[in-house]
Amino acid sequence: MFESAELGHTIDDEAYEKEAEKLRTALLDAQYELLEDQSFPVIVLVNGIDGAGKGETVNLLNEWLDPRHVRSRAFGDLRESERLRPKMWRFWQELPPKGKIGVLFGSWYSEPIYGRAVEGMTAATLASELEHIRSVERMLVDEGAVLVKLWFHLSKKAQKNRLKELERDKLTSWRVSAVDWKNFARYDDFRAVSEHVLRETSTGSAPWLVIDGSNANYRALSVGRALLAAIRARLDSRKAEIAKSKRATKGGRKNGAGAPAAAVSMLRTVETAGILKNLPFEERLSKEKYATKVLKCQAKLGRLSRSPKMTKRAVIVVFEGMDAAGKGGAIRRITQAIDARQYSVIPIAAPTDEERAQPYLWRFWRHMPRLGRFAIFDRSWYGRVLVERVEGFATENAWSRAYHEINEFEEQLVEDGVVVVKFWLAVTKDEQLKRFKEREATRRKQFKITAEDWRNRKKWDDYILAASDMIDRTSTSYAPWTVLEANDKHLARVRAIETLNERLADTL
Amino acid sequence: MFESAELGHTIDDEAYEKEAEKLRTALLDAQYELLEDQSFPVIVLVNGIDGAGKGETVNLLNEWLDPRHVRSRAFGDLRESERLRPKMWRFWQELPPKGKIGVLFGSWYSEPIYGRAVEGMTAATLASELEHIRSVERMLVDEGAVLVKLWFHLSKKAQKNRLKELERDKLTSWRVSAVDWKNFARYDDFRAVSEHVLRETSTGSAPWLVIDGSNANYRALSVGRALLAAIRARLDSRKAEIAKSKRATKGGRKNGAGAPAAAVSMLRTVETAGILKNLPFEERLSKEKYATKVLKCQAKLGRLSRSPKMTKRAVIVVFEGMDAAGKGGAIRRITQAIDARQYSVIPIAAPTDEERAQPYLWRFWRHMPRLGRFAIFDRSWYGRVLVERVEGFATENAWSRAYHEINEFEEQLVEDGVVVVKFWLAVTKDEQLKRFKEREATRRKQFKITAEDWRNRKKWDDYILAASDMIDRTSTSYAPWTVLEANDKHLARVRAIETLNERLADTL
Repeated sequence: MFESAELGHTIDDEAYEKEAEKLRTALLDAQYELLEDQSFPVIVLVNGIDGAGKGETVNLLNEWLDPRHVRSRAFGDLRESERLRPKMWRFWQELPPKGKIGVLFGSWYSEPIYGRAVEGMTAATLASELEHIRSVERMLVDEGAVLVKLWFHLSKKAQKNRLKELERDKLTSWRVSAVDWKNFARYDDFRAVSEHVLRETSTGSAPWLVIDGSNANYRALSVGRALLAAIRARLDSRKAEIAKSKRATKGGRKNGAGAPAAAVSMLRTVETAGILKNLPFEERLSKEKYATKVLKCQAKLGRLSRSPKMTKRAVIVVFEGMDAAGKGGAIRRITQAIDARQYSVIPIAAPTDEERAQPYLWRFWRHMPRLGRFAIFDRSWYGRVLVERVEGFATENAWSRAYHEINEFEEQLVEDGVVVVKFWLAVTKDEQLKRFKEREATRRKQFKITAEDWRNRKKWDDYILAASDMIDRTSTSYAPWTVLEANDKHLARVRAIETLNERLADTL
Repeated sequence: MFESAELGHTIDDEAYEKEAEKLRTALLDAQYELLEDQSFPVIVLVNGIDGAGKGETVNLLNEWLDPRHVRSRAFGDLRESERLRPKMWRFWQELPPKGKIGVLFGSWYSEPIYGRAVEGMTAATLASELEHIRSVERMLVDEGAVLVKLWFHLSKKAQKNRLKELERDKLTSWRVSAVDWKNFARYDDFRAVSEHVLRETSTGSAPWLVIDGSNANYRALSVGRALLAAIRARLDSRKAEIAKSKRATKGGRKNGAGAPAAAVSMLRTVETAGILKNLPFEERLSKEKYATKVLKCQAKLGRLSRSPKMTKRAVIVVFEGMDAAGKGGAIRRITQAIDARQYSVIPIAAPTDEERAQPYLWRFWRHMPRLGRFAIFDRSWYGRVLVERVEGFATENAWSRAYHEINEFEEQLVEDGVVVVKFWLAVTKDEQLKRFKEREATRRKQFKITAEDWRNRKKWDDYILAASDMIDRTSTSYAPWTVLEANDKHLARVRAIETLNERLADTL
C-alpha cells in the first residue's frame, strides 16, 4: 500500500515551475467547467501522517483554484454543537453542493484511525465504522459525487527527519509539540492501522491515492494531477454521454456511471515505476559462497517444512517476473529441500475453456493446498494485472478492480491459516537480452525461448509499469511482496529461500 | 426484513397449477437461452429457517428445469478434503460455469449465521466474515454472474406448527430430530442474527429475497418468479446491449452492467402489498375513553421526556401515511406533552434548490436533533421510496438503492444514541374520500385539500405498493415501523403515543 510513497520522489524547482504553471491553468479551466455544468460536486478528503504536508496541500488548493468555489474545512476536536449530534452530522454540514469543490481536512477517517491506533477502539467497532464509511461513500458516488481520497504518507525515517527539520528552524519550531513526538513513537501502530483502514475502504469507485509527502514539489504536482484527472474524466464522460444521448433515441443516464472512469484516471497519475528502478542490480554472490549458502538455507527450509506445526498451516509461494528472470531455477532450489509428497508446483499458462467459463480466480482455487502442504505458483493470479492488463485481455474496469479482489482473496487465505509468500524476480532489460541470446544458442535451452518472449520484450516498459502498480497496490501486511534483484541468479535463489524461511519461522 | 414473509400467503391448488404451468415453460425457455448465450452463470443461494422448504425448493428446481444443466450441491458438515483447505474452497469447486445454473444449498451463509447464533462467534469475527462474503459476491457479480439469494422464512409460530405437523405424520416424522427442537428453542437468537446478516449483505447488485415458506404453493411460485425475473432481465439487457452496439459505432460493454437490472426485476416479484391489507380498520375508541386515555399517555410521555436520562439520547419520530391520514393531528397530541424548547416539528415538502444540489439525505441531516431533543418529521427521507418512486422523480436505480442507504443511515443514528420511531398511518381509500369531502366542505379546513391530493389519490394502488415495499425493506430491529390503523383518529393518536412511550421506556 505504502510502497510507492516511500521511494523518496523529488522534483527540482525548475521542472516543478514548468509543470505547475500548466497544471494550474488546466485545473482552473476544469473548475469553471464544473461550475458551469453544475451536475456533480467534488469532495476531496485530506488525510495522512503528521508532517506529510496535509495542511500545505489544503493551502495550495485554495491558491491554485478559485477559492470562491472551494469550501475547505478542517475537522479537529468536536465542537459543542457537534458533540451533541450523530458523528456524521458535522461532515454532512460541509458537503459541497453540485458544481463546487469541498476539501475535508481530517474527514471521517481521522477518528476511527486514531481511535484504533491510540485509544483502544476494538476491532469490531472499527469494522462497523468502516462499514458505515463505505456505505456513505458508495451513496455519495451513486449520487454523482467525484470523491478524491488523498493519503499523505511518510516513512518512519522521513517523519523523524521532518519533525527535526521543523524543530531546528525558529520560524517553524512552534509547529512541533510534545504531542507530535508522542504520536511519532506510535508510528508503527499508526501505520498498521492506516494500512488496514485504507485497504478496507479502497473501493473501485472510491479508491485511496497514497502520496509521498517527503518532497513539497512532488507532493503538490501529485495532488494537482490527481484532482485534475478525476474532474476531467467525469466532465469528459458527461460530455460523451450527452453527445451519445443526442445521437441515440433513448437516454437514461444513471447517476454515478462515470465513477469508475474518474477513479481509474486518478489512480493513473500515481508514479509507481520507481519501485523497480534503481535496485542494486550489480550485487553478486560468488559461486563458492553460493554453494555453501544454498545448502545451509535449504537445510533450514527442510527442517521448517517438516515441523509438526506445519500440519496447521499451508504455504503458497508465488513467483512472478519477466521472461527469463529465473523463476524456474529458484523454484527448483526450493523444492529440492521439501519432501516430494508435500509440495506441488503449478505453472500458470493461458486459461483453458473450462477455466474461461468461470470467474478468473477460479482456476487458482482449484490448486489450493491442503494444510501441511506447499503450493508453488510459477506465475499466478497476478496475470490479471500483468499480462492481461498489458495485452488488453482484461478490460480496464476488470483489471482495476482486481487489485482489491486479490487483496481480499489473499486475506481470506491468510485468515484460514495459509502463509502467502510472493516474489518478484527483477532483472534489467540488458540482462534479459543476454539470457534470451544464451537460450537461443544452447540446444537444451531452446525450448525455453519463443517468438512470444521477443514480442513481450517489446512491451518492457508497460510490463514494468504494471508490475510496479501491482507491487504498490497488493503489498499488504499479511501478504507482502519481496522484490529480488535477479541479475545474479545465485543471489536471487538464496534470498528467496531465506525469505521463505523467515516467513515460515515467523508463523510456525 | 421479515415482515412480508410473515403475512401467511396462501395460493390454492387450482391457481397454483395454472400459473406453475406457464412458469415452467418460461423458465425452461430462459434456461435454454442462457445455455445458448453462454455468457454468464446463474448462482442460486438457498438459505433460511429449518422447515421453511429449502430442500423442497432444491428438488423443485431440479424438476422444473432441465437438470442436466443445473448443478446442485448441499453444503453440510465439512468433509476431510474441505476441512484442510481455506473455508471458501469448497464453494469455488461448485460454482456453475457460464451458461449453467448452480444451486448452493446452505452456501457460505450457514456457517457465519450458525456460528454467531449458536457457537459464540464474536461480533468482530462475524463482521470480518461478512466483509469477505460481500467482496466475493461483488466479485462474482462484477465477473458477470447473476446471483439469486433466497432466504426461506417462517414465523416462530409457523415453525412450531411445521415441526409438529411433520412429527404427526408417520411418513415424515423421521425428518424431525431432537436437534430441530433444540434449534427451535433458539429461534429468537437465530432470527436476530439472520436479520443482521441479511441486512449487512443485501447489496444493490446482490440483494436477498425473503420468501414466506409457510405455504408450499406460494413458495414454489415465488421462487420460480424470482429466478425467471432475474435470468430474463439479464438476457434482455444483453440483447438490448447487443442491438445497441450494432447501431452505435462504439461498444465496450462492461461486465456486470446488467446486475442492477437483474436485482431490481427479481425484487419486484415479491408480494408485499398484503402488509397494508386486512388491517382491523373497523376498531374504534369511544370519545370518552379517548379523552381519558390520551391524557394518561401524554402524562407518561411528559415524564419520560423530562427524564434525566434523556440528556444522553435524542429522539426522531417519523410520520408517513396517505394524504388526510391524520399525521398532523397525531403530531400535535405528542407535542402537547413535551416542553416546547425540547422539540421541533419538521414538515417535509419538495426540496429547495439548495437541497437539490446535495445528496438526498442532506436535507434531513440538517435537522438532526441534539442530544436531549425530539425531532418530529411530518413526512421524511422515505419520500424517496414513496412519492419520488411513484411520480418518477427518482430513477429506478436511485430509489432501489435507497432502502439500503436509509437502513444504513438509521443504523448510524441509533448507534450514536438516537431513538428512531416510525409510524405509518393507514386509512382505507373510502375513509380518505370521506375526509377529503369533509375538508372541502369545512371553511377552516379548505387549505388542507388541494388538486394535488386528488391527483395522488388516483395513484392509490401505486402508493400502497410503494409503502408496503418500504415497510418490508426498512423495518429493522433498531428502527422498526409501526403501522397504525387510522380510520379512527383517536385510536391512532393514542397508539402512537403509547408506542413512543414504550420505545422510550425501553431505551432510557
